[in-house]
Parts: sequence; structure tokens; C-alpha cells
Amino acid sequence: MDTAAPLSPASTVPADSTPVGTPLFSRIRLAAPSDVPHVHKLIHQMAVFENLSHVCSTTESDLSANLFTSPPFQSFTIFILEVSPKPFPENSPHNSNLNYIPVVRILNSDHPVDDPDREIFKSEDENVVVAGFALFFPNFPAYMGRPGLYVEAIFVRKCYRRKGFGKMLLSAVAKQAVKMNYCEVFWVVLNWNVNAIRFYGDMGAQMLPEWRICRLAGDALQLHQNDN
Amino acid sequence: MDTAAPLSPASTVPADSTPVGTPLFSRIRLAAPSDVPHVHKLIHQMAVFENLSHVCSTTESDLSANLFTSPPFQSFTIFILEVSPKPFPENSPHNSNLNYIPVVRILNSDHPVDDPDREIFKSEDENVVVAGFALFFPNFPAYMGRPGLYVEAIFVRKCYRRKGFGKMLLSAVAKQAVKMNYCEVFWVVLNWNVNAIRFYGDMGAQMLPEWRICRLAGDALQLHQNDN
Repeated sequence: MDTAAPLSPASTVPADSTPVGTPLFSRIRLAAPSDVPHVHKLIHQMAVFENLSHVCSTTESDLSANLFTSPPFQSFTIFILEVSPKPFPENSPHNSNLNYIPVVRILNSDHPVDDPDREIFKSEDENVVVAGFALFFPNFPAYMGRPGLYVEAIFVRKCYRRKGFGKMLLSAVAKQAVKMNYCEVFWVVLNWNVNAIRFYGDMGAQMLPEWRICRLAGDALQLHQNDN
Repeated sequence: MDTAAPLSPASTVPADSTPVGTPLFSRIRLAAPSDVPHVHKLIHQMAVFENLSHVCSTTESDLSANLFTSPPFQSFTIFILEVSPKPFPENSPHNSNLNYIPVVRILNSDHPVDDPDREIFKSEDENVVVAGFALFFPNFPAYMGRPGLYVEAIFVRKCYRRKGFGKMLLSAVAKQAVKMNYCEVFWVVLNWNVNAIRFYGDMGAQMLPEWRICRLAGDALQLHQNDN
């Protein structure tokens, strides 16, 4: 597994050093409405990974209609993970977003990543590719009395896994929670996903094995429309 | 178990009928900042019920600072369940709340309810007592692409249980979700709380046994404040 060396947003490989292997620049930034097509594809890839394609009905127009309707972090919020073989431009408009300063890291891979979906995940900048995302929103744990962040989804595309990007995304959410003086980061995981469970444990997360999820949806939900 | 007959907000026991048993009027309405002391006490009673008092640190000032900061249903929202031996006044200011028209029902109990905490849960109106609450906020199930409602807490005080009030609260949340064209109502339950699990099943809820809760909080969360 590659190591991820933290660098500031403006960092580049120093001109006088010989990078070990192939550099891969990575960045986490806030999503914008123009990211909807990529987010839509990421959600459907995540559904395939979780064996839940049959319940995934999200459309691009759903996302456009329901996201970006309030300022970041106050409601549904998305972090986009991007990668590039070249440094991200210092004059990127994302660097002047007052709501969130992007996190940038550089990895040195033994080999360039072979990305079969490069074309469909290409960003506005020719070199940049969307590699993953995190979707989260505020929750309110009654026993804490202060808001937290509920992470609905964290996903890294297959060819970019085992490089520390999942940790980078979850850390970015956790750091934002601390910054806002929020009390927790909360999420659910499939019990067969042992890699994810181990990774979350390494991040310091606590598993709460005695809780179960309940859900009222579809026809069972509609039945309640006439309740008094 | 008593049955709950749905009535409109202005309903009363007809003057020419002999009510069976003792009437108990009940109402669900939106919480207001003046409800904070009662909500605080309800949260702590819920923690005792769930054997989680040791993790419950919520204060009244936490609630005042973090609730009621945005319009109802857009963020953290509370429904208050009240009961009264007399009809709720028709000119109640809650009846003219444009965000939510209260739900009112009347129960006919065999006996008056003996409420040991009547004094501390007394409402502004002399006859009215706060009996429970539901705390919820919007979530965003990625696979549905539309918001839902996440129910953080539903609680009915002990002496008012087994009267259909839990169902009345959860139904009110579900009805609101349908009204807003939201896709689901989502919550978690302790796996030993078999009464609640049976009740949720009767409401049409689906259990998702393969999911587990993860949480990053306290020192483990603070450690991420310097993550890059």
C-alpha cells in the first residue's frame, strides 16, 4: 500500500528532487452542481459494490433537484475526490471557495494507475479525474445535545483503492466536524464488509453492535399519508 | 390496550353522548423554544429507559443553542405529544402555525392516568401535560436520490405507554414525509428492545439486519482535527 504524504494545497513535487515512482496528486474539494453527472455514476458504482443495484434508482435530475439547495455543511453536502498526474493549478476557483479550502496530497505509486473509466470520470481540467466522493449531512444525537455529521456514503473507485483515499475522505469529514465543534461522525456499514470495518476501527471509530436499522419506505410509507 | 379514535383538531366529546371511561385528549404539535426544559427532561428519561444515562450529557443550553435555528422540517425538528383531560382550546396559537397543523385524538381510558411527574411536565395550559416527543431531521439516502426523514428519537413517558401514542408520533413523522414527497423514514433501534421492534414491524417498517452503526466521537474524533 502506498503512503500518503500530507502537503498544503499549493504543494508540488520539488523541482530538485527525484520523485520515487509515479506521482499522483489528489484533492478533496466541495462538490458543485456541475459534478452531478459524476456523482450519479459514483452512486451507481457504489450500489454495484454493495450488491444493492436493484434498489438504486437515483437519477441525475434527482440529485440536481435535491442537492446544493442550502449552503455547504448546513444540509446535504458532498466532497469530491480528484486525482491528477500533474499538480492542481494554484489559481483553481476551488482554492478561493470560502466555505472549504481543498485538501491536497501527493502519492508516489510504483506504477501509474490503469483507470478503465478515465474518460467518463474526466473533470473539466484535462488531467483531472474524479476518483471518489463522500456524501454527508448534519445529524443531532439526542444524548449529546450538539449536532454531528452523518456520513451517508463514502466511495472510492476500484482502481484507486488501497491508497489511503478512503481515509483521506473520512478524515476530511471528521476534521470538518471538529472545526464546527460537532460532537460525532456517524455512519452505517454492511456487516460483511470486513475491510471497511477494519479500516474504520483503525480510524478510531467505535462499532455499536446492538443497534439495528429500521426503514419505512415505498408502499408501507405511502400507507401513512392518511394517518390522523 | 386502548384504541385511539382519530378526530379533527377541533373535536370534543359530543355533549349528548356518554363517554366510555375517562377521556384523554392528545395532541401532536411542533415544538417551540419554550419546550426546551420538557424536551431536556424527556431526553434524560429516554436515556434511563435505554440504559444509556452514562452517555447522556445533553443540557438545556445545548438544546436552546442548536434547535430552532432553521424553519421546521428543513433541519432538526421536534414534535411534542401532549395530553389533557379536557379538549385543547380551539384558539390555541398552535392551530394557526402555518408550518404544521396539530394532530388531535381522543382516547377513552378505563381509568384516569396516574402521572407521577405531572408537575414537572405541566404545560402552559393548566390541564395539559407533555407526554412524549419525536426528534427528526432530513437525511439523503444516496440510492433513492431524494431526501427522507431520519428519526433520532421517539419517546413516550412510562405512564402513557401502551395507548397508541408511539404509533401516533411515528405516523405523524411518516405522514409528513409523504407530504413532502420524501422517500423514507429511517431510524435505529436497540436489538434487545423487542416491544419496539414488534411495534415498528406492525407499522410496516423493514428491518435491515446486515447493517451496523459506526461512530467517531470524543478523543478519537478530536485526533482528526490536524488531519491533512
